[in-house]
Amino acid sequence: MTATRTETDSFGPLEVPADKYWGAQTQRSIINFPIGWERQPVPIIRALGAIKKACAQTNVEFGNMEPEIGDAICQAAQEVIDGKFDDNFPLVVWQTGSGTQSNMNSNEVISNRAIEILGGVMGSKSPVHPNDHCNMGQSSNDTFPTAMHVGIGLQARDVLLPGLNKLAAALEAKSDEFKDIIKIGRTHTQDATPLTLGQEFSGYAHQVRKGIERVEACLPDIYELAQGGTAVGTGLNTKKGWDTKVAARIAEITGLPFVTAPNKFEALAAHDAMVMFSGALKTVAASLFKIANDIRLLGSGPRSGLGELILPENEPGSSIMPGKVNPTQAEALTMVCAHVMGNDAAVGFAGSQGHFELNVYNPMMSYNVLQSMQLLGDSASAFTDNMVSGIQANEARIDKLMKESLMLVTALAPTIGYDNATKVAKTAHKNGTTLKEEAIALGFVDEKTFDEIVRPEDMIGPKD
Amino acid sequence: MTATRTETDSFGPLEVPADKYWGAQTQRSIINFPIGWERQPVPIIRALGAIKKACAQTNVEFGNMEPEIGDAICQAAQEVIDGKFDDNFPLVVWQTGSGTQSNMNSNEVISNRAIEILGGVMGSKSPVHPNDHCNMGQSSNDTFPTAMHVGIGLQARDVLLPGLNKLAAALEAKSDEFKDIIKIGRTHTQDATPLTLGQEFSGYAHQVRKGIERVEACLPDIYELAQGGTAVGTGLNTKKGWDTKVAARIAEITGLPFVTAPNKFEALAAHDAMVMFSGALKTVAASLFKIANDIRLLGSGPRSGLGELILPENEPGSSIMPGKVNPTQAEALTMVCAHVMGNDAAVGFAGSQGHFELNVYNPMMSYNVLQSMQLLGDSASAFTDNMVSGIQANEARIDKLMKESLMLVTALAPTIGYDNATKVAKTAHKNGTTLKEEAIALGFVDEKTFDEIVRPEDMIGPKD
Amino acid sequence: MTATRTETDSFGPLEVPADKYWGAQTQRSIINFPIGWERQPVPIIRALGAIKKACAQTNVEFGNMEPEIGDAICQAAQEVIDGKFDDNFPLVVWQTGSGTQSNMNSNEVISNRAIEILGGVMGSKSPVHPNDHCNMGQSSNDTFPTAMHVGIGLQARDVLLPGLNKLAAALEAKSDEFKDIIKIGRTHTQDATPLTLGQEFSGYAHQVRKGIERVEACLPDIYELAQGGTAVGTGLNTKKGWDTKVAARIAEITGLPFVTAPNKFEALAAHDAMVMFSGALKTVAASLFKIANDIRLLGSGPRSGLGELILPENEPGSSIMPGKVNPTQAEALTMVCAHVMGNDAAVGFAGSQGHFELNVYNPMMSYNVLQSMQLLGDSASAFTDNMVSGIQANEARIDKLMKESLMLVTALAPTIGYDNATKVAKTAHKNGTTLKEEAIALGFVDEKTFDEIVRPEDMIGPKD
Amino acid sequence: MTATRTETDSFGPLEVPADKYWGAQTQRSIINFPIGWERQPVPIIRALGAIKKACAQTNVEFGNMEPEIGDAICQAAQEVIDGKFDDNFPLVVWQTGSGTQSNMNSNEVISNRAIEILGGVMGSKSPVHPNDHCNMGQSSNDTFPTAMHVGIGLQARDVLLPGLNKLAAALEAKSDEFKDIIKIGRTHTQDATPLTLGQEFSGYAHQVRKGIERVEACLPDIYELAQGGTAVGTGLNTKKGWDTKVAARIAEITGLPFVTAPNKFEALAAHDAMVMFSGALKTVAASLFKIANDIRLLGSGPRSGLGELILPENEPGSSIMPGKVNPTQAEALTMVCAHVMGNDAAVGFAGSQGHFELNVYNPMMSYNVLQSMQLLGDSASAFTDNMVSGIQANEARIDKLMKESLMLVTALAPTIGYDNATKVAKTAHKNGTTLKEEAIALGFVDEKTFDEIVRPEDMIGPKD
Repeated sequence: MTATRTETDSFGPLEVPADKYWGAQTQRSIINFPIGWERQPVPIIRALGAIKKACAQTNVEFGNMEPEIGDAICQAAQEVIDGKFDDNFPLVVWQTGSGTQSNMNSNEVISNRAIEILGGVMGSKSPVHPNDHCNMGQSSNDTFPTAMHVGIGLQARDVLLPGLNKLAAALEAKSDEFKDIIKIGRTHTQDATPLTLGQEFSGYAHQVRKGIERVEACLPDIYELAQGGTAVGTGLNTKKGWDTKVAARIAEITGLPFVTAPNKFEALAAHDAMVMFSGALKTVAASLFKIANDIRLLGSGPRSGLGELILPENEPGSSIMPGKVNPTQAEALTMVCAHVMGNDAAVGFAGSQGHFELNVYNPMMSYNVLQSMQLLGDSASAFTDNMVSGIQANEARIDKLMKESLMLVTALAPTIGYDNATKVAKTAHKNGTTLKEEAIALGFVDEKTFDEIVRPEDMIGPKD
Repeated sequence: MTATRTETDSFGPLEVPADKYWGAQTQRSIINFPIGWERQPVPIIRALGAIKKACAQTNVEFGNMEPEIGDAICQAAQEVIDGKFDDNFPLVVWQTGSGTQSNMNSNEVISNRAIEILGGVMGSKSPVHPNDHCNMGQSSNDTFPTAMHVGIGLQARDVLLPGLNKLAAALEAKSDEFKDIIKIGRTHTQDATPLTLGQEFSGYAHQVRKGIERVEACLPDIYELAQGGTAVGTGLNTKKGWDTKVAARIAEITGLPFVTAPNKFEALAAHDAMVMFSGALKTVAASLFKIANDIRLLGSGPRSGLGELILPENEPGSSIMPGKVNPTQAEALTMVCAHVMGNDAAVGFAGSQGHFELNVYNPMMSYNVLQSMQLLGDSASAFTDNMVSGIQANEARIDKLMKESLMLVTALAPTIGYDNATKVAKTAHKNGTTLKEEAIALGFVDEKTFDEIVRPEDMIGPKD
Repeated sequence: MTATRTETDSFGPLEVPADKYWGAQTQRSIINFPIGWERQPVPIIRALGAIKKACAQTNVEFGNMEPEIGDAICQAAQEVIDGKFDDNFPLVVWQTGSGTQSNMNSNEVISNRAIEILGGVMGSKSPVHPNDHCNMGQSSNDTFPTAMHVGIGLQARDVLLPGLNKLAAALEAKSDEFKDIIKIGRTHTQDATPLTLGQEFSGYAHQVRKGIERVEACLPDIYELAQGGTAVGTGLNTKKGWDTKVAARIAEITGLPFVTAPNKFEALAAHDAMVMFSGALKTVAASLFKIANDIRLLGSGPRSGLGELILPENEPGSSIMPGKVNPTQAEALTMVCAHVMGNDAAVGFAGSQGHFELNVYNPMMSYNVLQSMQLLGDSASAFTDNMVSGIQANEARIDKLMKESLMLVTALAPTIGYDNATKVAKTAHKNGTTLKEEAIALGFVDEKTFDEIVRPEDMIGPKD
Repeated sequence: MTATRTETDSFGPLEVPADKYWGAQTQRSIINFPIGWERQPVPIIRALGAIKKACAQTNVEFGNMEPEIGDAICQAAQEVIDGKFDDNFPLVVWQTGSGTQSNMNSNEVISNRAIEILGGVMGSKSPVHPNDHCNMGQSSNDTFPTAMHVGIGLQARDVLLPGLNKLAAALEAKSDEFKDIIKIGRTHTQDATPLTLGQEFSGYAHQVRKGIERVEACLPDIYELAQGGTAVGTGLNTKKGWDTKVAARIAEITGLPFVTAPNKFEALAAHDAMVMFSGALKTVAASLFKIANDIRLLGSGPRSGLGELILPENEPGSSIMPGKVNPTQAEALTMVCAHVMGNDAAVGFAGSQGHFELNVYNPMMSYNVLQSMQLLGDSASAFTDNMVSGIQANEARIDKLMKESLMLVTALAPTIGYDNATKVAKTAHKNGTTLKEEAIALGFVDEKTFDEIVRPEDMIGPKD
């Protein structure tokens, strides 16, 4: 039997584990929502800590709260920020749609910890009350959306953008490394005119760089915080300027440029900023999917595929086929990308479903967005370390495939016309011969002209 | 410092925690895939246990394996089935797309445990080898898809269907309880002709019953197992009849009617059965969303909403608004439903992305489907216990709203014609009067006729 | 200036084109909904004709309607069924969500045509009234959902299933044609153990056959008709048995096994049957995507791709690259498949959004489902005619790629063990040598044993 | 029998309708792709005209093309821009994924028209050749993506943004009109603290304004054009600076700030800009869905709903219920929004599926994006004209619902504490009494204090 402590809320008393700081409302949520295995992500917990600290500071500053209480709350909240209470946030995502229970979880943990700091009795709500003090000037309806935005801001800075930047840099390095390797281009999966392997990788790098830009372009809306709207957006039970000040404190605590949202009604009732942000994540996912898919196809083989790239060997690939090596990092990444697309669909759906003054899909929306960010950041990083950085060009193979291509005929078209060039290519294809043989045999050019015109190294850019 | 043991694979030696049974390939996956927080769900682990046991039994039976080895594998595998090794499956979803590393995780845990049983040295691969014995006649390419199907079968029986059946029964009970309460119907959210509250709930119950039917109708395809296809579907390194026998053994172990898949090429390269099954889950989600959304709107208030239903009060609803009670179970359920739709989008995408002989989105697809099942089952159950079972009809309110409705005029239309009935309704609406007043004033009927025709109790079904 | 005729509804008179049969409510919808370019699909129009005819027949049979009126309605409705009035249905999808305006469009066209047949004055609503007669015993709320189901039933029989059956047959024929061609298998896009090209195509064929089964398994729910539920599902203004009889008449008219829905409340308020059906379409889309994508990759080249398949050349492939031929049918089909997945997401969303007694996403849901069916049916047919039927195996290329594969080593594993077999493959890969050379050099087998064991023709199925 | 003309391509001669300007490749596409009913949208056709004109101008300027030919092409292209040849673009969306056939359609129409202008024989390809002249310096692979971006730019300026701006302005006007009407707030669909109706509408207006900003923020990426990349992104068969010049010409012709894309490899192989843009459209859809759904619920009734808003009556709402009026504009708009979400899913999927140097989902992606824009623009406009502009506040009803609310108790919490305030609200709810009665009876405040504190007009903003 675990030792317990009695906590109470307006529905009555409940036993909670004695070694935990949470109170009756948290415990009641555990009982009422035995759903799934997905807990509130850590960035949400840390963000709640930051909010509670910022609000206590501001409340003291506005003269709403005694400094002694405020200090104790700040100390407890800082411990939440520092991750000391992660295991005191047991609630799942599938609770009240406002996140009220997780907000109360933070109020209960922080008030009990503050009570402890001040030498009081846990569960007594005195001298620090979870609602009257920790939640002072706040409603879950503005606090949880604020936690969502703060959590996303942290996750972008700490996980997503570092992962994407690492990948972009690695692709740029490869683009540079491969800048002189001329290879066959492929359109419609079919042989096309040549380009350099460096150019091909420059497209990948550009995609990721643009993805970073897109994510960053969506962050300013995320930096707008609902805090101060309280129950329905009006700011009832706050004072003028309190919202601005709290946002500034949160910015100070987190080091991110948070500001107060200009329209709190929108900030509570809709989460368009998150829907849009999720769209940026989906765009990144589309980019990474294309890159990873290309790389595994270009690295297909080792003997019976395209074989242009030599991919790093990281682990045994098969439980039955000895010696098999697979592009597993590309697989993890493409699975992530497909999953992020699903998350985006869920987020868009949920974002449309607010009723009147509140959207009640908060924990689900933030879970999906934060998960997408974690997965994209982590897998971009792993894909860089275990795949991109180790890619080598199979130059002999690349050269062979490029030189056999019939699409070098395109260089001839401006000289002999599209229709004649078509005849050359089709005849060579039919006869299994070279373009040069057929171009000469058909009488369109002489050998010298052919050799002057059909030069792969002249086909990889516009003419001067 | 944790004590470690040296394990090896074809890439060399690796240290693994001494208190764990996994080997080098599992450890290598931990190192190479530091992505996200989502581990392989428990049903997959248990299913791998069932497969390894069934294969060992069959291998002994076919004379491929010495009985002593087979017995040790069976004992170890049974312990996996019993959940004794759940904490020995540390791998995340975002690994190789074939699930090879989780298959090897099971091979490594079971072989080490079998070695232990037989008194050998863990990590020695002798006398029980993870590949040569535990994986005998198997490839990850058939084993993991089999684990996916077995896991889904278990999850359907143990979580999803019990939850849905409980909800259907509760809705049917409410439909019966409310069968004599006549209420206003609403179409386009606007007042319409009456029906009984029981009829309204019968629609909900019918949706859930049909949902159960739909899930069950998709299970036979899930019961078809890929096992025996080995690497590419041909069954290389198995014997004729082995696949059928293994499926029968798995059926025996799990108590579910598994059979061998008729076309193993399809079973490895595509997961259409799962895509279809996910579509059934999405359909259930659409149903439950509608039901939960209706119930919260019908229970809106307590004073300024529709107020037809009195919903159970389970916990404090607001951190700022004292005494507020919210339809939180409906919120958890609608969040789940929106999430399931996202999962379905991800599953459909992934299902389309197989290349040649293998689809490599296995762990992601099974994660999404199993999560959807867990969430739908759990939330249907919680919604029943904490919401549906406690719903009461606010009969006074229902009666008042029903009697005021102008749409009772519809009963007059067959007698006085649609155009005249329109005049009655529009005039009463404009004047704020009753239908009866205006129908008589406009000279279309006398009072007696009106009273005979416009009777809500006669408007809730077809005429004899 | 176009000649016009005055038509009226309860909102007043409106001018309509004199050469059209529609009335004021249709015209009002044209004015109020100038949205997009998507009209009600033809199957909906024809289905409304079938419904109006069936209802008129049944109303006469039940003594609700004079036979002369009924006959005129039946004649006019038959003309709608026959497609003579397709250009009298100008309304877009983006109208009232119940489809009321399209239902009224059919009532107005049929009543005016019936008036014309009976020698009356169009627009007079006499002797045939659009509501009192054409809509007798009906509401848009049951009629439009019925039209959706009837339209889908027709579309399945006439477009979707013929297209899929044609494709399945063509794939089966190819599977048979290619049954003796042994080729390399590919898993993770990497070289794997061999199979026959016929086996590979058997997987494709099986996917399509199962898709047909899945569509057919969902049709019985589509065959359940809402007709008879009238405004809110109660059947107000109908008689007992009327619903059953109407469904039988619709079955007779269309030749499809329609029956009355067992729960009309569900049939109006939800469209789960369509959500599920759409899920089956999405599953078919996932299957066809995989098949088309494989085929274009296997046919990639002509010189620098995999080149195992020779694809039909149907048209010039490039406006700049002379002689280029592309797998355009695969592209059309994969575009269709991706589009169908989007449609499915929209349908699932809409299906969840009913309020109380009515879902008001009818025209959008039916548009998406019917479009998906049209596109899948048409593109499956075009893909068969212009791609699958003309596919040839490039046998020389296939043989070469197969024989070079290192994964033939898998056949050795049961004899020399997985770890030794790994050494063989890795050494051959590193040295660019053959498996046989290295297997012998490493001392694991002699030449004779190797030749007996590593035989591709013995690797394409289980052993006896 | 329609009169025909013989046209030829490298696959041979084909008969085309004599009264049309298209050639053999267009006709071949008609024959090979009998799929669906969706034609290339008009903005794509007009955009192709703009491109062909800009390229001809630039080719003359660069000395690649004789001025006489260039002038004829420009004149013909201008006619395409002006919409004179819309009926000469018969191709469906479901063709080659590069849009080659539609590019050739424009080349064929323009070359034949230019031939006609110059007095030549249509079909002779002389003196103006569809490839050698109209397509000079171009590939479909850069041209069609350029047409997609140009078409989207036009559609944003001409359809989407005007619709959204109109709606935003109307909502702002309503917000101002309703600024003094205090109403009950609703969170979780349940009674909450008050706000003004103007504040509520300010949230809607802010959503739309932000939506406009989001769309505009995504346009710069759309303004980047692929033109000049030719077949694979290298710019083969163009001259340095040609790409920049063409973009400038397109900007001149369209009046939009188009520039050349900085990385042509990315611009051909991926369409991330469109995926992101589609995400912005989805965000707008989520916003509009929420707004429309709120408005229909706030306007529900007329007698048995919330009834706070009086919605405009635009047309008869029911074919069976006389006098019924429905929020049909909200239905059209929410259907559009759900459809746009589906389109977004399809676009994201397709955007991820490029292979190597080309994404071949072009016509499908542009169709979906352009359709979403058309639908959102049109329905925002119709929703404004036929719904928002006519909304009236039902002030008596609003006042009654607001004053009855128990959540006014929130104003008491800072004075008597959250727990005591909870007791007041719960007791009043249980007894059906007022807050004042219970607050006094429970001894927490006297009447005077209550009246001073609980003042709705003081609850709609922060305190000074």
